[in-house]
Amino acid sequence: MSTETKQTNTSGKIITPEQLLAHWQGHRSLTRRTIEVFPEKDFFNYTIGGMRPFATMIKELLAIAGPGIEGIVTEKWQEFNEDLKLSTKEDILKLWDETTVKIDTLWNGISESEFQKEIVAFGQYDGTIQSTILYFIDNEIHHRGQGYVYLRFLGIEPPMFWDRN
Amino acid sequence: MSTETKQTNTSGKIITPEQLLAHWQGHRSLTRRTIEVFPEKDFFNYTIGGMRPFATMIKELLAIAGPGIEGIVTEKWQEFNEDLKLSTKEDILKLWDETTVKIDTLWNGISESEFQKEIVAFGQYDGTIQSTILYFIDNEIHHRGQGYVYLRFLGIEPPMFWDRN
Repeated sequence: MSTETKQTNTSGKIITPEQLLAHWQGHRSLTRRTIEVFPEKDFFNYTIGGMRPFATMIKELLAIAGPGIEGIVTEKWQEFNEDLKLSTKEDILKLWDETTVKIDTLWNGISESEFQKEIVAFGQYDGTIQSTILYFIDNEIHHRGQGYVYLRFLGIEPPMFWDRN
Repeated sequence: MSTETKQTNTSGKIITPEQLLAHWQGHRSLTRRTIEVFPEKDFFNYTIGGMRPFATMIKELLAIAGPGIEGIVTEKWQEFNEDLKLSTKEDILKLWDETTVKIDTLWNGISESEFQKEIVAFGQYDGTIQSTILYFIDNEIHHRGQGYVYLRFLGIEPPMFWDRN
């Protein structure tokens, strides 16, 4: 993929690559803070309604974000694997932060003209680069919203939804 | 605002106005189906973790979407009011569908060059038109994800997250 320099002029653009990156990373920052407020044992074990523990959802998000941006930029897709061998919040947050750097680093590997390119994410999900990235973000918001219910059940105040810093 | 005809050519665009509209309406379609699967009484009364019933969250979404697109296009903002006098699923779904038509109808009132324009949504939330619309969508995904937990608790299968038709 091209590594052409991104324009910072927003004129005539619905959303710029820089804005889409900031949007994604803003959501990831909020999810990181949601992980942080979970007590260690509840993060890995607490479930309601027959759903997965929040840690298992977070492993799904980690299996999507880093390998996802790599696949988009390199056009080489690994098989989707959310069975990550991580058993502490510290290890999860470490991979979360490494993924943050990976996304920032690889982002410029997507040229503006490529966002509408058709891809098959993880070798099985048809879309364009833009629709795939929006799906990654939407899926994260969806599961984080579920984590908020877990926290409310545990009597813990979740981070403010509108705070993306 | 301008009512200029939108281009359907996607070249060089991260996301087109038509794609952003379809993205929003696709999420709204999924939320509509999430409302539909709730039993009437649980929709209005069921709560967990001290949170609001799903109907109250849906009233918030209705108070945002229709008045939101109207404010964006007319540049006249009403005071935000989520205290909607709707007490049946039928009435809620009727307003939901009217809002769907309103969004489709008013959408062309946003010209491509306006998506980066700074606005103050509902007279109190600073952003651009694009960031405001993305916030509307994100907020809907967030609360719908919480509705999914309510449904799981009730032993009801939610709609498939990836289905936006």
